[in-house]
Amino acid sequence: MRRNGSVVVMKFGLLGIVFVLLSLLVSHLQSEEGMFPVSDIYALNLMEKGLEISPTDIYNPDGICLVDGICRVNGCTGSFVSPEGLIITNHHCAYRAIQNASTADNDLLANGFSAPDRAAGIPSAGYGVRITESYGDVAAKVLSVVKAEMTFTERTKAIERRRKELEKQAEAANPAIRAEVAEMFAGKTYVLFEYTFIRDVRLVFAPPSSVGNFGGDVDNWEWPRHTGDFSFMRAYVAADGSSAEYSPDNVPYQPKKHIKVDPRGVAANDFVFLLGYPGRTARHKTAAFLAYEEGVRLPFIVDLYQWQIALMEEMGLEDRAVALKHSSRMRSLANVEKRSRGQLKGLKRAQITAGRAAQEAQLQAFIESDPQRSQNYGNVLQEIAQGYADVGNTADYELTISNLNNASRALYFAWLIYDAAMERQKPDLERESAYMERNVARTMQRLKLAAKDWHPETDQAMLQGMIERLSGVTFPADAVVDKATLLADLNALSDDVIAAKWNDPDFIDALLKKSPAELSNSDDPFIQVMAKLHPEYSRLRELGKQRSGKMDKLYGSLIEVKQDFLKTQFVPDANGTLRMTFGRVEGYSPEDAVIKTPITTLSGVIDKTTGVTPFQTPQRIVDLYGAKDFGPFALPGKEDLAVAILYSTDTTGGNSGSPILNAKGNLVGVNFDRAFEATINDFAWNQSYSRSIGVDIRYALWITGKVFGAEHLLREMGVSSQ
Amino acid sequence: MRRNGSVVVMKFGLLGIVFVLLSLLVSHLQSEEGMFPVSDIYALNLMEKGLEISPTDIYNPDGICLVDGICRVNGCTGSFVSPEGLIITNHHCAYRAIQNASTADNDLLANGFSAPDRAAGIPSAGYGVRITESYGDVAAKVLSVVKAEMTFTERTKAIERRRKELEKQAEAANPAIRAEVAEMFAGKTYVLFEYTFIRDVRLVFAPPSSVGNFGGDVDNWEWPRHTGDFSFMRAYVAADGSSAEYSPDNVPYQPKKHIKVDPRGVAANDFVFLLGYPGRTARHKTAAFLAYEEGVRLPFIVDLYQWQIALMEEMGLEDRAVALKHSSRMRSLANVEKRSRGQLKGLKRAQITAGRAAQEAQLQAFIESDPQRSQNYGNVLQEIAQGYADVGNTADYELTISNLNNASRALYFAWLIYDAAMERQKPDLERESAYMERNVARTMQRLKLAAKDWHPETDQAMLQGMIERLSGVTFPADAVVDKATLLADLNALSDDVIAAKWNDPDFIDALLKKSPAELSNSDDPFIQVMAKLHPEYSRLRELGKQRSGKMDKLYGSLIEVKQDFLKTQFVPDANGTLRMTFGRVEGYSPEDAVIKTPITTLSGVIDKTTGVTPFQTPQRIVDLYGAKDFGPFALPGKEDLAVAILYSTDTTGGNSGSPILNAKGNLVGVNFDRAFEATINDFAWNQSYSRSIGVDIRYALWITGKVFGAEHLLREMGVSSQ
Repeated sequence: MRRNGSVVVMKFGLLGIVFVLLSLLVSHLQSEEGMFPVSDIYALNLMEKGLEISPTDIYNPDGICLVDGICRVNGCTGSFVSPEGLIITNHHCAYRAIQNASTADNDLLANGFSAPDRAAGIPSAGYGVRITESYGDVAAKVLSVVKAEMTFTERTKAIERRRKELEKQAEAANPAIRAEVAEMFAGKTYVLFEYTFIRDVRLVFAPPSSVGNFGGDVDNWEWPRHTGDFSFMRAYVAADGSSAEYSPDNVPYQPKKHIKVDPRGVAANDFVFLLGYPGRTARHKTAAFLAYEEGVRLPFIVDLYQWQIALMEEMGLEDRAVALKHSSRMRSLANVEKRSRGQLKGLKRAQITAGRAAQEAQLQAFIESDPQRSQNYGNVLQEIAQGYADVGNTADYELTISNLNNASRALYFAWLIYDAAMERQKPDLERESAYMERNVARTMQRLKLAAKDWHPETDQAMLQGMIERLSGVTFPADAVVDKATLLADLNALSDDVIAAKWNDPDFIDALLKKSPAELSNSDDPFIQVMAKLHPEYSRLRELGKQRSGKMDKLYGSLIEVKQDFLKTQFVPDANGTLRMTFGRVEGYSPEDAVIKTPITTLSGVIDKTTGVTPFQTPQRIVDLYGAKDFGPFALPGKEDLAVAILYSTDTTGGNSGSPILNAKGNLVGVNFDRAFEATINDFAWNQSYSRSIGVDIRYALWITGKVFGAEHLLREMGVSSQ
Repeated sequence: MRRNGSVVVMKFGLLGIVFVLLSLLVSHLQSEEGMFPVSDIYALNLMEKGLEISPTDIYNPDGICLVDGICRVNGCTGSFVSPEGLIITNHHCAYRAIQNASTADNDLLANGFSAPDRAAGIPSAGYGVRITESYGDVAAKVLSVVKAEMTFTERTKAIERRRKELEKQAEAANPAIRAEVAEMFAGKTYVLFEYTFIRDVRLVFAPPSSVGNFGGDVDNWEWPRHTGDFSFMRAYVAADGSSAEYSPDNVPYQPKKHIKVDPRGVAANDFVFLLGYPGRTARHKTAAFLAYEEGVRLPFIVDLYQWQIALMEEMGLEDRAVALKHSSRMRSLANVEKRSRGQLKGLKRAQITAGRAAQEAQLQAFIESDPQRSQNYGNVLQEIAQGYADVGNTADYELTISNLNNASRALYFAWLIYDAAMERQKPDLERESAYMERNVARTMQRLKLAAKDWHPETDQAMLQGMIERLSGVTFPADAVVDKATLLADLNALSDDVIAAKWNDPDFIDALLKKSPAELSNSDDPFIQVMAKLHPEYSRLRELGKQRSGKMDKLYGSLIEVKQDFLKTQFVPDANGTLRMTFGRVEGYSPEDAVIKTPITTLSGVIDKTTGVTPFQTPQRIVDLYGAKDFGPFALPGKEDLAVAILYSTDTTGGNSGSPILNAKGNLVGVNFDRAFEATINDFAWNQSYSRSIGVDIRYALWITGKVFGAEHLLREMGVSSQ
């Protein structure tokens, strides 16, 4: 991997001077690692770095601020862009909703969708919107339940139970909110988040996939990018303003704050920042973890998912209805598969594991330089390493058996039904979170949505493939399932897939009412097999809790001594809670003699267009491009239109849909991806190549207003395509 | 395909200004299409364009000039870089010689080679060096033999015979030279070239393939490039200065002129020019030809060669001796296969065929605007199109049958032996050129060199694959071989491959002495099959002459009317004769938001190095890189070394090994490839992406002197690595 600046090699000449100037510029515009909790942003000197509003305009626990205009949309982020609950997010974040509303005859994925009026928005089952209302430290309250004599499993369970208890208490105190206790530093710090939670979310506008997913899996995780990956949804609440399930009587939600759209977009070098809900990073994990990822888990996932994707692709080749059923699942597997390949490549090339091991060697020397410190922390790194080594020993089995009931949806349904029945027998606070009273309805809704897309032929092939994989795996001695018996059961089950009734909601509903004993006596072959297999999944769940208990405790110690060593505070790893990150619109050099510039154009879309998916372009876009009709959105001085932008913020999954905000806090784009080299971001940040990708707001506005005529949405946002 | 400048899109900001400046600069530094015959360069205003010497310093028919320091090395170009006949050319041009001298135990491809003294150079059988001594127009003399009443076949044969006659006359008048009549514009202009021809050529220095072929087929035809694709050879003559076959008594050839090496290399934006022997272009061919290439021939070649390459690769996996036998052939197939893919992609993306058809429509309108012109030329384009349509109709058969005796080397040997016997019966001037007295010895030497690398198991698999392909092909009605009979004969022959004696030079020598009748009675199964198949190859050869006769006549008319229409002179298509091309060291934009800069570095080599072929790097290079020990060759102001350079000259195959000369006519690099987008150069030039690739002389000197210690070669060139 080459870095900016030093790759540009010239002796003299005007061109040389230009490039040297360029390199100098780039090297002065450093951005920083960090997905900062919003309460931490005051210490960042953001105004020195280019912000033109006050940090309290971004986050202010005592007043209205930009954070009030941001929401979490399932696993993504969205922004309110009008007083009437209009949300801009990614096309891929609304994908499940678009797919659900699509049929082979009325194919919204292919054709796009634009609701002519508020009544015509499409209810999006399974979608929920959260707005962070407040948060506070509850670490002491959580950790108070931990006793020194607890086993690791007991420790994990005690913390889990306490977190659920605090959540229930908070929700009891304020029934309008949903509460969540998030772990910031494993085993160390816990924060209680309170959210407004909106359950009636509707699809308002989606471009066709030829725009919203232009480039598809080929361009996914790549820059240059030419994807119009945006969509509009709208949040609705009951007439009294309270959160409610979908009803035609509901009214648009009025956010405390909406983000102002700036139709002038960005220019290279502009300061930008993002707000959002980044999912998971592993910046604080040890070299042993990285070695496990690089050597075991990532290669397993790449291999498994490549097979599953190829299988689903083949099954959908001849029948668009089947392809539609698979589309969302296939896309999300493809996304993870390619990201995992990028991470494998990045781990190898940038020698990140070796680098982290070297840091740890320094830390270990620091620990051993003091007898007391040595006594407290001397074995921490080694025990963590041993933990990952233990996981690695049985990983082949555990990864395969746990993917068995994911690959085969029929087995997954049977597992969820059986698991729910088992958990229902426990008191609410003892249950797995998904089955608690406050969550179980949505869990069951997700089950039914998944069942809607069940395709027996694909599922049978998946099961057969998993049987083959399982048969090549050594079962550990403590497994409570016998390999030969299981394989025989699964083989017999494979004959039952085609005739199974998972497409029938009544069949599922009936099963959901049964107790474990009734299920065990059921004559459904999947439930029967699951009744025998479930104890093994329970064993693995307990094993996971034991490992977490141990690792959380060890990581808690590690972060203590690391802070002592480095004399610095750390930014916690991403955990799906609200964060802020900043950077600049800037290119990068992925390799010697290659420079990628940070703004792509509609000319680039036209160049890439082959007429074959994923490189098709609607004729109206081609025509408007030919007529150079870009309205007020044209690039200044160019007969062209910006499409996507690249910037040096620190993002991960969950930042999909995050607003790209300019120095004044106005929305200039919507974040949707990272550059291929930046897949490694989840493990390590690097200013040279950690780049995020967003759709330029000018492209989104042009597509919505000029191309698809939804001028009313532009008016609602206070802009116009005229 | 995106062009320079317009892809760089910024609104304002310093970075924006820098980029705008950059775009302006690039657009002012236009280079030009043209592989100019050296007698045409005076009209080019080269000194205005950056040349700092007089064009007569480059080519001067009446005095010593740079052209006297350039030579053709088989199908490549080389430069004399010392008074003692030292030639610098590409590693891939010397590849056959390095392969020939390699064994599994003494693997010069893997280890490189450096002759400690003049006596230790390795004689390179099959190599010859030509220096252009003079040339003159002989079009009238050639075309005088053409009579209106001739059939097309007769026309071709008459011209061929006349060209051979003129060559023999010239060689009789001056026995020290070799003569060649080259066709410049098909059917129109012919030039007699006189060459000094040196037959004793020896390998002096080659870096290991890890340097000389770094990046291998992966990086071939790609920029950025990090290949040290250079080698040194030396030309020897008899003590009296006359050309002679290898003898230990021979002495180094003293060229009239040698090219001065400039160890300071180049910088971005420098004016550069190349001299060399570009092989073949098709810039003057019609849209119908391009459609045939795109639709028929290139896809056929890609498919055929991919199979052959995979087969040879598999055969060599377990045995380095077998891999060595295949290496040269495999590499040249891989080179053509990837170039063909690039051309297919370029033809499609740049819509070159459609563009040419549009030009031809304008030409046709011009023709039809005048009754006399219409009568003379009205049908020319249509008849040319019909000609390619006819070729296309039987192409599947003809391409397959003609590749049969190329894929199977045993069949090729049998064909060459039988063909030679048939031709020997004719008077010298009537023979195919390869079998004329002046050429037959080298033809037979090539046969024996090819036989040296014969590997029966590979050959059997090749034959079986070709049988399968042939069985799927429709034989035309006028074929003089019956499909069923041929397939049966070939199937039987397939069993004889392993036991065949093509590895035995005595066996081949004995066959070469036999008459056609004796061969027909021979009990060798390959010769027997070829005796039956040869009439079909003869029919195809005659058919080719008939087509050439017709096409040459039509193209002669086309160029006449095109010159009348465009009121301009054309540069003839490349035809293996001496040409000059100029341009600048400059990058390009292969696509929206990507800029490739024109100089790569040793840092890039280190970055690409994985330790696995073709991305291995000798430890000594890694060590010297670590020590930043670049001697006088370091990039000014950088702790790095230039490796390869990119420039906008107009080149094609045959320019391999061409000197890259700076404004003062000094050697600053050695040309070896083109960028992927520039594979399409053979059909059309484009300033935006037609870029050639060379090794920077600083890298060649550093590798030769500093890394491999051949300091004596640097001294001989008047430079030093100290």
